Amino acid sequence: MNTEILGLIAGGLTSIASMPQLIKVIKNKNVEDLSWLMLLILVTGLSLWVWYGIQQDELPIILSNSFAVIVNLALLVCYFIYKDK
Amino acid sequence: MNTEILGLIAGGLTSIASMPQLIKVIKNKNVEDLSWLMLLILVTGLSLWVWYGIQQDELPIILSNSFAVIVNLALLVCYFIYKDK
Repeated sequence: MNTEILGLIAGGLTSIASMPQLIKVIKNKNVEDLSWLMLLILVTGLSLWVWYGIQQDELPIILSNSFAVIVNLALLVCYFIYKDK
Repeated sequence: MNTEILGLIAGGLTSIASMPQLIKVIKNKNVEDLSWLMLLILVTGLSLWVWYGIQQDELPIILSNSFAVIVNLALLVCYFIYKDK
């Protein structure tokens, strides 16, 4: 199989799997299961993966980790909006 | 920065960020926040990332995704052990 297509399928699956948590948090406005520290570590790690993908010129890594950065930044924003509710 | 070191740091951070959920599930024996379908999609996607890493001969991708496969398989096992409790 073409490696880029393999990476895009892999990235698609791991991206789909990250959505339910965001949907649940937005729906329930409940962030007690989230840790801002872990989200910050995760966003930092994912951003470094994007940088890695750019250095290696690998589109699947850039796309899937950029998507994950957006999802987890959204979770972080939800955390600070909903934490006192 | 050496790209392999960048990838290893990125993988280390995203791996650290995955641990609290597993620790929490093992500690509380509570899996009501987990979805077996999402875990299955995630494990499938992560396994494809390992395959991608092997094809591209990239150690950071192989290591971090193998670790993530183990963590999420452990969550899946916990799900089926604790789901009726």
